[in-house]
Amino acid sequence: MEKIRIGLLGLGQVGGGVYSLLTRKKAYFEREVGVSFEIRKVAVRNLSKKRPVKIPKSLLTTNPLEVVEDPSVDVVVELIGGTTDAAKLIKKALQAGKHVVTANKALLAERGDEIFELAGKLNRWVFFEASVGGGIPIIKTLREGLVANRLESLHAIINGTCNYILSKMTSEKTDFAVALREAQQKGYAEPDPTLDVDGSDAAHKLAVLVRFGFGGRIRYKDIYKEGIRSISAEDIAFADEFGYRIKLLAIAKNGGKVVEARVQPSLLPKDHILANVNGSFNAILLHGDHVGDVLLYGRGAGSFPTASAVVSDLTDLARRFSSMNESDAFLMRANAQRLKVKSISQVLTRYYLRFHVLDRPGVLAMISKVLGSHGISISDCVQKERRHGGVVPLIMLTHGANEKDVRNAVRSIDRLKFVRGKSQVIRIEGDN
Amino acid sequence: MEKIRIGLLGLGQVGGGVYSLLTRKKAYFEREVGVSFEIRKVAVRNLSKKRPVKIPKSLLTTNPLEVVEDPSVDVVVELIGGTTDAAKLIKKALQAGKHVVTANKALLAERGDEIFELAGKLNRWVFFEASVGGGIPIIKTLREGLVANRLESLHAIINGTCNYILSKMTSEKTDFAVALREAQQKGYAEPDPTLDVDGSDAAHKLAVLVRFGFGGRIRYKDIYKEGIRSISAEDIAFADEFGYRIKLLAIAKNGGKVVEARVQPSLLPKDHILANVNGSFNAILLHGDHVGDVLLYGRGAGSFPTASAVVSDLTDLARRFSSMNESDAFLMRANAQRLKVKSISQVLTRYYLRFHVLDRPGVLAMISKVLGSHGISISDCVQKERRHGGVVPLIMLTHGANEKDVRNAVRSIDRLKFVRGKSQVIRIEGDN
Repeated sequence: MEKIRIGLLGLGQVGGGVYSLLTRKKAYFEREVGVSFEIRKVAVRNLSKKRPVKIPKSLLTTNPLEVVEDPSVDVVVELIGGTTDAAKLIKKALQAGKHVVTANKALLAERGDEIFELAGKLNRWVFFEASVGGGIPIIKTLREGLVANRLESLHAIINGTCNYILSKMTSEKTDFAVALREAQQKGYAEPDPTLDVDGSDAAHKLAVLVRFGFGGRIRYKDIYKEGIRSISAEDIAFADEFGYRIKLLAIAKNGGKVVEARVQPSLLPKDHILANVNGSFNAILLHGDHVGDVLLYGRGAGSFPTASAVVSDLTDLARRFSSMNESDAFLMRANAQRLKVKSISQVLTRYYLRFHVLDRPGVLAMISKVLGSHGISISDCVQKERRHGGVVPLIMLTHGANEKDVRNAVRSIDRLKFVRGKSQVIRIEGDN
Repeated sequence: MEKIRIGLLGLGQVGGGVYSLLTRKKAYFEREVGVSFEIRKVAVRNLSKKRPVKIPKSLLTTNPLEVVEDPSVDVVVELIGGTTDAAKLIKKALQAGKHVVTANKALLAERGDEIFELAGKLNRWVFFEASVGGGIPIIKTLREGLVANRLESLHAIINGTCNYILSKMTSEKTDFAVALREAQQKGYAEPDPTLDVDGSDAAHKLAVLVRFGFGGRIRYKDIYKEGIRSISAEDIAFADEFGYRIKLLAIAKNGGKVVEARVQPSLLPKDHILANVNGSFNAILLHGDHVGDVLLYGRGAGSFPTASAVVSDLTDLARRFSSMNESDAFLMRANAQRLKVKSISQVLTRYYLRFHVLDRPGVLAMISKVLGSHGISISDCVQKERRHGGVVPLIMLTHGANEKDVRNAVRSIDRLKFVRGKSQVIRIEGDN
């Protein structure tokens, strides 16, 4: 089993998540992935700060150099953010022979050239899955999954704060200031939200995506950006009337040596897949010359989603030192235990039931009674196109019910003399 | 540079796509990915059949054993489909020391145990990205991107034929038979559509996803499945009234040693991300214990999307023989040429323009004239809440226009004496 020794810079939201994930799931990673992660040293600013994670005092230091220069550390994970100290520490880590994992999009966008040039020269790896789209495996997809493709364009919702605010403004018809306050109260926006709402954060991420997606560096400051402060509830309402929603999009188009790269509020047709990415979710829509459109969607921020991406990078790194690779581990899983499939009769969901019934008094009551006697309760009901004496559809939506109970009830109902034809039973998913 | 010698079984839609992609982009793969792909032998059923791809006669054989037993072949790519011959040939290939790439979900679902057990015993790799979701990198995401997560559930639209039919039934209010005929005419459904519309194809793919996502085998025949033949236009209309769309979903829930696995038409709330996956697109929504919800979306079938997945597998295999790995190639890209960003003033999109104007005769004409004089043409226009003499919003959507022209025009308009405040300019994306 490969052993990876980690030095952690920062124990905030993301750093705490990484520490917690690696320690809680240590046995899981050893057994299922074939990698043993050991955290050797953690640099923090304040030793006595109360933290949500339990961590041995002996691991902590306030001197980040102790982490990047520790000879027993293989990989430095940089999660302090900012560009000045982070750049200095990452370079020192590379020079000390460490590989680096970082979530720092500002750093990669503004000082990526120096970092990647140094890494290339020293033959070290810099991994950064967590820098764009939180837990979404977008960097791996660009690097490996779509390797056969020339990327022609990307359209991305990569700032969760703006998407949360715009979603709120849309669903609650409120203005920017109100939605921003709510986002701040819920922790989706910083007390100073400038970096998010003026589009800088999205532009940082776009610079990273273009560099690796199109295979060329662009100057961060060349990216045109507009924020969402000027968007009003009125604009959202008018856009809606014309069949559009407003989203902050990061857009890039590959034109060879000249690319388009911009961050802007944009109207999108309501049935566009990106128009339906709501709340704090992120999504990146790629267009490759062979694969066509591919979209990846998920949590763009948060302690655990981001930690998930950091650990994916650490595992990728571990494979590079190891004789065992991910396919071996994966094959082990393929040949693992046999699982039983739960009988469909025990599956619990909500149901849509449609009956064709003669339109007579007492029909609704009778059918409700049969359902009730099988323990099925009704959440919604509608009877349509009343034609006295004729056959009319009767639709019922149920609360969560057992497949077996539903089948038995419908069988009984289908035998009632005022029921015509076979009744329809369709499950409801996604809201229970 | 690593050289990979390939034997191809099948030169149909997907096989032809793989052959075409590997030959057309040969130089690209050598330069950007560091792998040289060479096709050594291709087994076909009929030597004289006309094919869309040009291929030297000397590469073709009607005897598939010549491919799987060719000592100069490193990797056998199986694209003939079916379970009997494919299983025989894949096993022979593994026994002859080859690695295998396959797109064959039926085979993996029904006979995966023998294949993966033999591969494990012989220490060979079987890769199968193309077996689920066409060009969507779902297998890589399960294997690597979400390696830190225990997968708790998945909800997937993985049969493009059914999704195309249900989308048509929804948008055009037609019945199943009509939509099926249209799907057949457009090549989205087979002349005999049974495997697709009865849910078998989706169940095959679900078996593959569960095996690798949950880490355990399930018996394909234990998966409960319902097709979409019984769904009527009436059901879709009623579902719509209640706020739902109907989709064929493949669903699995991880319950440890007992899992839920079923394929069923399902009602989904209209604002659910999966409810907005339309036409022949596929999407897989995963829920991991750390990353939360992640969705991958793209073309689930087709010659080039599927070939994109096959080549991603071939590249992954190549890395396993090679001293150079994907991070090196990726780092090369990171340190590649500098790209210019196109000036925003040259970017062409449609626009939403909102003016606040005094409600007077001639205002609309005057504004239209200014836009026209800058070469901007109007596609839609609405003036709201007419209050004679008061200030009213006037909204115009434009056809494709140049940023620079729009800025200049709006600057002129903002100077008109009946225009109040600063006008709003938002780009429209996704429908041009």
